[in-house]
Amino acid sequence: MTRIDRLKQAAVKHNKPGVFTVFNSTNINYFTGFQGATALLIPEQGENMLFVGSVNYEQAKAEVKDAQVQLLKRGENIMDRIAQHTSAGKLAVDTLSIDSWRALAKAVGGEEKLEVANQLIRGLRAVKDEKEIKLIREACRIADEGMKAVAQTIRAGITERQVAAEAEYAMRKAGSDGVAFETIVVCGVCCAYPHGGAGERIIAEGDFVIADLGATYRLYRSDITRTFIAGNPNQKQIKMYETVKLAQQKAFENIKAHTLAKEADLAARRVIEDTGMGEFFVHNLGHGVGLEIHEAPILGPHSHDLLETGNVVTNEPGIYIPGYGGVRIEDTTLITENGPEKLTNTPYAH
Amino acid sequence: MTRIDRLKQAAVKHNKPGVFTVFNSTNINYFTGFQGATALLIPEQGENMLFVGSVNYEQAKAEVKDAQVQLLKRGENIMDRIAQHTSAGKLAVDTLSIDSWRALAKAVGGEEKLEVANQLIRGLRAVKDEKEIKLIREACRIADEGMKAVAQTIRAGITERQVAAEAEYAMRKAGSDGVAFETIVVCGVCCAYPHGGAGERIIAEGDFVIADLGATYRLYRSDITRTFIAGNPNQKQIKMYETVKLAQQKAFENIKAHTLAKEADLAARRVIEDTGMGEFFVHNLGHGVGLEIHEAPILGPHSHDLLETGNVVTNEPGIYIPGYGGVRIEDTTLITENGPEKLTNTPYAH
Repeated sequence: MTRIDRLKQAAVKHNKPGVFTVFNSTNINYFTGFQGATALLIPEQGENMLFVGSVNYEQAKAEVKDAQVQLLKRGENIMDRIAQHTSAGKLAVDTLSIDSWRALAKAVGGEEKLEVANQLIRGLRAVKDEKEIKLIREACRIADEGMKAVAQTIRAGITERQVAAEAEYAMRKAGSDGVAFETIVVCGVCCAYPHGGAGERIIAEGDFVIADLGATYRLYRSDITRTFIAGNPNQKQIKMYETVKLAQQKAFENIKAHTLAKEADLAARRVIEDTGMGEFFVHNLGHGVGLEIHEAPILGPHSHDLLETGNVVTNEPGIYIPGYGGVRIEDTTLITENGPEKLTNTPYAH
Repeated sequence: MTRIDRLKQAAVKHNKPGVFTVFNSTNINYFTGFQGATALLIPEQGENMLFVGSVNYEQAKAEVKDAQVQLLKRGENIMDRIAQHTSAGKLAVDTLSIDSWRALAKAVGGEEKLEVANQLIRGLRAVKDEKEIKLIREACRIADEGMKAVAQTIRAGITERQVAAEAEYAMRKAGSDGVAFETIVVCGVCCAYPHGGAGERIIAEGDFVIADLGATYRLYRSDITRTFIAGNPNQKQIKMYETVKLAQQKAFENIKAHTLAKEADLAARRVIEDTGMGEFFVHNLGHGVGLEIHEAPILGPHSHDLLETGNVVTNEPGIYIPGYGGVRIEDTTLITENGPEKLTNTPYAH
């Protein structure tokens, strides 16, 4: 069964319109394997249509298999093209900006003929098939190569950016199509900022260093974090590190099918709260990973998502003490029928 | 005058609401210099408010200057927070997905209290100030270092990905915060695809090789393309190459203030059409570059944009012959009071 067939099945099950238009480029990618189309129209019967501008038309014709590729001329209105192919019934739409939504509504004869149905695709994409798991597995293997380079590079006296440079170069040599997101390498007090980039700061003796990186392999992504200490750790650093490590382990045991995603978050949160550092775990435990670096499910205290076999998620608890530093440990994790499996496997630094 | 002041001034001029909410993260970045906030509220009077989740709250407090940083608790509804601070009048919104638009409309008491006003910000961002130009200039200098590495690496027998690896490594070492977009290195017949990535294909003797890359420097981006020939060019290759080079030169002369952006596109298009290859120039001449790799103005045959002093745009004509190959030459170009200035300066390969 193709992914489009699964979408049609889900539409019937959830009583959604049978005609679907997909605008989000990652969603289009998911269904057709092609980047750079403007829209995908999935009718109830007949062939799917992929609308592609002249810049990507030749490539689309050569590469796309499950849809008829239609040229969208420059200056032509995509909404009018879609309206030509829609019938009297309602049209499901994945997602659009308010401006584009209004343009589509005008073209099809009113907002009441449209229905937002992105949740269906979100749900499909959260459960990875065998082919996707294979690609994510490879992206994770490449990320491990990047993290190995980080471990070999980190020492007092070099900059965060130098570490990032070596990590990305190692990943490229291992087969990466590019980073999965902007590589983070932060040291010292900046480790208290979960999203820090990689700058000109020089690593000092005794610093925490957080490296958070990922690779893209044939459009699929990976995500791993390790925290290092440049030199010998002190007692406070050891306590923070061991707490996060234990929290990650406890979360891991709860990343399994038929479990609420928030249970995994709470398992980690409880460990950190028990040491009195609960206020410093300032983010969710994790998120799904696939074609995008952040996708469903959400693993956080307010999540309503249920974990399922085939989910690929991050498990990344952390402790961030303002003015002092921080620790985060993260692995990309697959949910199999037999429980969780780590796809990133770089040894812990400590 | 701050950028927020310029927005307020533009709002008065275009008769837009005096209270503005900015949701797009690049727009928030533009006004506050901070990535990772959820929304920016700009009231008519009084202090601006930047709503930030707990994950980025400490960093925002340390780094943001022109706005009061407000903690958005996990599970809290941002739309309700914004509604608390809006009065009886209308609220201008930059852009939102249809789902979020509906949530905001519900919170403020109806869609009629909202007005889309992204065009104002698009216009402001298209005209770069001195500080922005300095950063883009540095991003361009770094991209030139990347392209120098490409020129030194390209030869028959190595893969596209190896070339990309060396280019990105050189840019990192020259101070890049990361790529400006996914590096493109394509060879042979794949040069006929303007957006090709960088894969396992091996460069062969006599191949066209297109390298299209950019760096990010303190959030600002650059964009450059050079086309190489691995070995000795044949007559057809020379004709394609010289045509694109001339087209780029003719476009360059028309990238100046008070000129319609489409005139620059047409200047290049005319050169290519005159050789009978017009059908193979399948994309626009260029686009604005700044915080995003594609922003205003658009330089294409259907553009309504007027070029202005302070615009930074790409000038990138190309010829793509299906089944044969392609040529593209691109420079990031600044419009000064005295005319166009190339910010990327790698010598042409041929």
